[in-house]
Amino acid sequence: MINREMYALGAKRSAIRELAEYGWKRSAEIGAENVFDFSIGNPSVPAPECVRECMEDIIKNTDPVTLHGYTSAPGDIGCRNAVADELNNRFGSSFTGENLYLTCGASSSLNITLKALTCEGDEFIINAPFFPEYKVFIENQGGKAVIIPPDTDTFSLNLPELEKAVNEHTKAVIINSPNNPTGVVYSEASLKAISELLERKQEEYSHPIYIISDEPYREVVYEKEVPFIPHIYDNTVICYSYSKSLSLPGERIGYVLVPDAATDSKELISAVAGAGRALGYVCAPALFQRVIAKLSGKTADISVYQRNRDILYPALTEMGFDCVRPDGAFYLFMKCPDGDATSFCEKAKKYELLLVPGDGFGCPSYVRISYCVQTEKLLRSLKAFEALAKEYK
Amino acid sequence: MINREMYALGAKRSAIRELAEYGWKRSAEIGAENVFDFSIGNPSVPAPECVRECMEDIIKNTDPVTLHGYTSAPGDIGCRNAVADELNNRFGSSFTGENLYLTCGASSSLNITLKALTCEGDEFIINAPFFPEYKVFIENQGGKAVIIPPDTDTFSLNLPELEKAVNEHTKAVIINSPNNPTGVVYSEASLKAISELLERKQEEYSHPIYIISDEPYREVVYEKEVPFIPHIYDNTVICYSYSKSLSLPGERIGYVLVPDAATDSKELISAVAGAGRALGYVCAPALFQRVIAKLSGKTADISVYQRNRDILYPALTEMGFDCVRPDGAFYLFMKCPDGDATSFCEKAKKYELLLVPGDGFGCPSYVRISYCVQTEKLLRSLKAFEALAKEYK
Repeated sequence: MINREMYALGAKRSAIRELAEYGWKRSAEIGAENVFDFSIGNPSVPAPECVRECMEDIIKNTDPVTLHGYTSAPGDIGCRNAVADELNNRFGSSFTGENLYLTCGASSSLNITLKALTCEGDEFIINAPFFPEYKVFIENQGGKAVIIPPDTDTFSLNLPELEKAVNEHTKAVIINSPNNPTGVVYSEASLKAISELLERKQEEYSHPIYIISDEPYREVVYEKEVPFIPHIYDNTVICYSYSKSLSLPGERIGYVLVPDAATDSKELISAVAGAGRALGYVCAPALFQRVIAKLSGKTADISVYQRNRDILYPALTEMGFDCVRPDGAFYLFMKCPDGDATSFCEKAKKYELLLVPGDGFGCPSYVRISYCVQTEKLLRSLKAFEALAKEYK
Repeated sequence: MINREMYALGAKRSAIRELAEYGWKRSAEIGAENVFDFSIGNPSVPAPECVRECMEDIIKNTDPVTLHGYTSAPGDIGCRNAVADELNNRFGSSFTGENLYLTCGASSSLNITLKALTCEGDEFIINAPFFPEYKVFIENQGGKAVIIPPDTDTFSLNLPELEKAVNEHTKAVIINSPNNPTGVVYSEASLKAISELLERKQEEYSHPIYIISDEPYREVVYEKEVPFIPHIYDNTVICYSYSKSLSLPGERIGYVLVPDAATDSKELISAVAGAGRALGYVCAPALFQRVIAKLSGKTADISVYQRNRDILYPALTEMGFDCVRPDGAFYLFMKCPDGDATSFCEKAKKYELLLVPGDGFGCPSYVRISYCVQTEKLLRSLKAFEALAKEYK
C-alpha cells in the first residue's frame, strides 16, 4: 500500500550509507579510534576558519528577518552574482547570476538538472566506475541509465564505448572529474576527444547532447589542473557543491550552472527552476547562500588529502594491491586480489577496515577507500591492511 | 528538447512567487516602504533572540568537522530524539527519534511523503481553498489531485464533499490547519467527524487512508487550540516546518513524523527515507538540525500577527469587504466584490497593494492577503484598501 520502490530504496539504503551507519554503531561499541572507517566521503578536514568568521559576521550584522527569510527561488541575486564573479575571475568566463540556480548540494543539483532535461525515452550515459546514486537519480527522474564499461587502463572516460553507446535517445553524458570513486582527473586532451565525439553525434542526430559535469571535487586536486569543461564543450551544465571544497557536506549548498552557450539555455534555466519547484526545493539554505557569496573559490586545507594519498597509495601498492593512483578527490580505487569485492570487504571488517565494495560503482572486482580521515588514523590502519593482504598470499 | 512540464512550471512560477518577485522589483523602483506587499508568507517577525544565541553557541562550541558533516540521512539521532521529546512533553505522545525524518522544510516534507505513499492510480484529496503547490507536488509525485469545493460558511473541511470524493483509489487527504490561505483552525469536533468518516471508508475499501497533516502554522495561532491530529486519527503523517514558528523560512528545516500507530509505520518510514534519497535530499541542513534540537516548540513573537489580524479584519469588514476571520497563520481570505479576483488584484496594484488572486487556491472569487508585514505598514495600507473599496461602490 506504499510505494514499493521507495520502500526498497529506503530499507536497503546505499551500500555506502549502510556501511557508514555500521561504522557509527561500531564506533559506539569499540571507540571511534578503533574503527578504520573508509566508507563515506565526509571531509575530515574542518571547514576553513573563514567559514566560522563569515557565519559569525553574518549572524551579528544581518537583520534576522532578511537573513533567514525566503530568497528568490534560484537564490538571492546578490549571492548568485558574487558566485558568478568569482567563477569569472578564476576561469575567464562571463557568467552572471542569471546562469546560476543555487541548490541544496550536488545531489539536489543533479536531480533538478535531470528532471529539467528528461523527456520520454531519454538516455543518460554514465561511465563505470560511477557514483552509485547517479543510477537512482536518473531512473527516478524518468530517464534510462546507460552504463558503459570502465577503461581499466586509464580510468578516464572510455571513448570507444561512448561512441557505441550514444544514439538518438542520448540526452546527456555525466562526467565526474576529479572522479568518485577513482580520484582520476580527466585530462584536457581526453575532454577534447569527448567533446569532438559529442559534437559529431549532435550533428548526426540533429539534437543537443549535454554534458552534465558533476563537480563536487573540482577544487580537491593535487598536482594536476582540472580543465573547465564549459570552455571545451558548449552544451555543458555544471552541478556543483561546496560540500567537499569548503568541508560543508551537512549544510547542503551548491548550484546548477547553465552557460548562455548551451542550447536553449534560457529555457533550460527555466526548466531547472521548474524542476526545483516540483521537487520541493523552495530555495537553498539562506545563511549558507550568504556564506558562499563571500567564500566561493576558497577551500579547506586539502593538503591533508594529498598527504594521505602519498601515504596510502605507495603503502598499498607495496603490499601488492593493484591501485588506481588518485589525482584528486579523496578516494582510492583498489582491485581485490581474487576479484570478489564482497568477500574482500567482509574480511576487511574483521580488521575494523570499512571499505565500500565496487559493485555499486559498476566495478564489482574493486573497492573504494575514502581516505578523508585523520592522517594518524590512516597510518594506524596500514597494519590492518597488511593483515588483510596476508590473507590473500 | 527539455522537459516541457518543468519549463512551464519554471517559466510561469507560482502566482505567489511571481507577485513576490514583482514586489521586490517594485520596491527597488519606488522604495520598499511604498509597496504594500501582501503576497508571500515570509514571516515579518524576526527569529527569536534564542536562535541567534543558539547558533553562536553551536558555532563556537562544536568541532566544525562534526558540526558541518553529513548526518545520518533521516537526521542526527540525537537531534531527532530531542524533537521527539519536546513533542511528547507538549502533546503527551510517546514518539522517539525513529518516528522522525528531518527535512528541508514543509515542501520537502510533503514531496517526500507523497513520493513514499504514491502507488499507481492513487488519489489525494485536497479541500479548496488549498496551498496551490499541493497540486504541483501531488501530480509530480505521480498521484491524482482530487479537489473538493470549499465550505464557504465555515471554511473548515467540507464533510459532505469529502464523503463523495473518497473512493477505492483514495490514498490520503491533506489537511492544513491553521489553514493557508484562510487562517481557519479546524475544531476538534470537525476533525473527529473527518476521522469517523475516514475510519468508515477504510473499512469499506479495506485499505488505509492517511491524513497528511501539513502543519507549518501549528504554533501560529491566536485564541484557539490546534488539536493534535495523531491523537484523533491513527493514520496521520505530519509534515512540519520551522519556517513560520521560528521565522526561519529561508533555512529550510522541518520534518516528517510517522507515528507507530499508523498502518505499516515501519515500512512507511523506510519509504520516506527512500523518497528522500530518490529526490536528492541527502540530509537536512546540519547546523539547523542542532538549532531545532534545542529550540523545537519555541516561537517567534507571534503576537504581532494577532495584532495585525485585529487591525486588518475589522478594518476590511468595516469597508464592506466579506472576509474570513483568521484564527491563526497570517493570512486573510477575502471575497472580491464582483467575484473577479484577477481584475481585483490588478486594480489593487494601482495602489501598490499586492494581493494573491484566489484562483490558484481553488477559490477564484477570493484573494489572499498575507498580513505578515510590519504593523506600521499594515496601518498605512488601509488607505490603499479604502481607495480600492471605493472603486467598487
